[in-house]
Amino acid sequence: MPGGADQVVMQERTERDGDIVRIDDTCRPGANVRKAGIDFTEGDILLPAGTRLTPDAVGLMVGASLTYANVFCRPKVGVLSTGNELVEPGQAAGPDQIINSISKAMDGLVRQWGGDPVYLGIARDDPADVRAKLDPSRDLDLIVTIGGASVGDHDHLRQVFSAESGALVFEKIAIKPGKPTWFGTLRNTPVLGLPGNPVSSLVMARLCLRPAMQILTGQTPDLNFAKARLGVSLPENGPRETFIRAQYDADEGTVAPLDNQDSSALSALVRSDCLIRRLSHAPVAHIGDEVQTLRLTSRTSP
Amino acid sequence: MPGGADQVVMQERTERDGDIVRIDDTCRPGANVRKAGIDFTEGDILLPAGTRLTPDAVGLMVGASLTYANVFCRPKVGVLSTGNELVEPGQAAGPDQIINSISKAMDGLVRQWGGDPVYLGIARDDPADVRAKLDPSRDLDLIVTIGGASVGDHDHLRQVFSAESGALVFEKIAIKPGKPTWFGTLRNTPVLGLPGNPVSSLVMARLCLRPAMQILTGQTPDLNFAKARLGVSLPENGPRETFIRAQYDADEGTVAPLDNQDSSALSALVRSDCLIRRLSHAPVAHIGDEVQTLRLTSRTSP
Repeated sequence: MPGGADQVVMQERTERDGDIVRIDDTCRPGANVRKAGIDFTEGDILLPAGTRLTPDAVGLMVGASLTYANVFCRPKVGVLSTGNELVEPGQAAGPDQIINSISKAMDGLVRQWGGDPVYLGIARDDPADVRAKLDPSRDLDLIVTIGGASVGDHDHLRQVFSAESGALVFEKIAIKPGKPTWFGTLRNTPVLGLPGNPVSSLVMARLCLRPAMQILTGQTPDLNFAKARLGVSLPENGPRETFIRAQYDADEGTVAPLDNQDSSALSALVRSDCLIRRLSHAPVAHIGDEVQTLRLTSRTSP
Repeated sequence: MPGGADQVVMQERTERDGDIVRIDDTCRPGANVRKAGIDFTEGDILLPAGTRLTPDAVGLMVGASLTYANVFCRPKVGVLSTGNELVEPGQAAGPDQIINSISKAMDGLVRQWGGDPVYLGIARDDPADVRAKLDPSRDLDLIVTIGGASVGDHDHLRQVFSAESGALVFEKIAIKPGKPTWFGTLRNTPVLGLPGNPVSSLVMARLCLRPAMQILTGQTPDLNFAKARLGVSLPENGPRETFIRAQYDADEGTVAPLDNQDSSALSALVRSDCLIRRLSHAPVAHIGDEVQTLRLTSRTSP
């Protein structure tokens, strides 16, 4: 604003005739003027510690003349698959083998959540191999293991964990899918044990790994459930809290489960865009009832 | 399954005594057996063309022995700021200058939406400079311009666009904030003109740029509105469709506008986690009414 001026008139409301400007507007001091400091002013906290530097936040930061910020390092997250039945993608799977698909998905989730994944390979059903794959020299911030936590003779992971003086925090969880999820620390590194079933593993990654990574990156862990109305009724739930693969109908504003809820059915997880949360022993829920949902990333986010 | 077996008994339900195994389970043929093909079977379309390769989708793909996929190239998106009043982040801004914050935010949004941003710099209020900055040799898939589309004498962008035989598709849009948004093609390259106000620009990027990038990457454009209940009432809306910066209350399942709706208030956009959509001339909306919302990325997505 030039000194002495107290109102701005839109050019569309003026008419120029040589050196004369005709103004088709009333005198309203302050009109079309933004006062200094209406966005932020000296002393305001613009980005509290723990704020994720989204594109908008970066815009605000540089708009406030801040061109540097202290940030957390990307945590290094080791991903260890387990089991003699696994072959790597690109290898031919025999009749009693399956392709190790989860570690590739986990790699993408770790990146999406701000970490650097370190693939530790497949530990075979042999304590020596498990021990070698958990080599402590890698300096990881978190280790995610996949499979190998059941009571089968060939599940050596937990045995090695105990033998190496790992401290177990919990060894199963009352959630479906994902009961054999466990957590502990090994030589001061947190270890999250995810189940070997693809859907169980990728659902529990949302419920446990993402919050863990939020903590490692200085954020407040938040599952960020949203409410939505049911498009179909649901039976009463069993003793375990359950996360149902579902689709959101934007026109109706409702959610409905997919048919295939098997914990091996990765195709259904891919077709779902949210999980419906059912608390343990939740009663029958009817069409139109509100339920909690956890949105999954099927598209880019606005 | 070994040949001839038709049921699996959980190890937890057995007791071993030397060579004898006692089974504490009933005979239920098929129990604990997953039939082949329950996830997917030959001929199924697992990932229709246009599916984004999320971590889960990559898991499904490699699980089905697919280690290659045809994908779209990341579109190259030019970002051109305009105006003599802008200085780059890190430079001192004089009393009538502001820091060019939007281009840094746009850079992040373009990356988030799957593109490679190409910063074209600040075009000064001079047709020759605008022309130079729009140099066609860069082989861009889309150009985003920021500011310079109003009727002021110094807004040369649209004038150069017309002089270079650009084809205008629309030149303003009945949306608030973001009225001076325009779209056209220049030498077969689509050009999206966003407003110079930070919030207008970053809101319109969600409404126009993201769908454009979905098209350029073979996806179906989708604004993906979700329904939520109002935590406060809203007055009737004016003639322009309006997107209100708002926060979602996960406990209540409601949304409420932030106080500062000024189109320059980037701090309010950063504090918001969704936009409430109000259609043109929408009547008064009451507490508890359902409204459409567009989620913004304030956190990592599950």
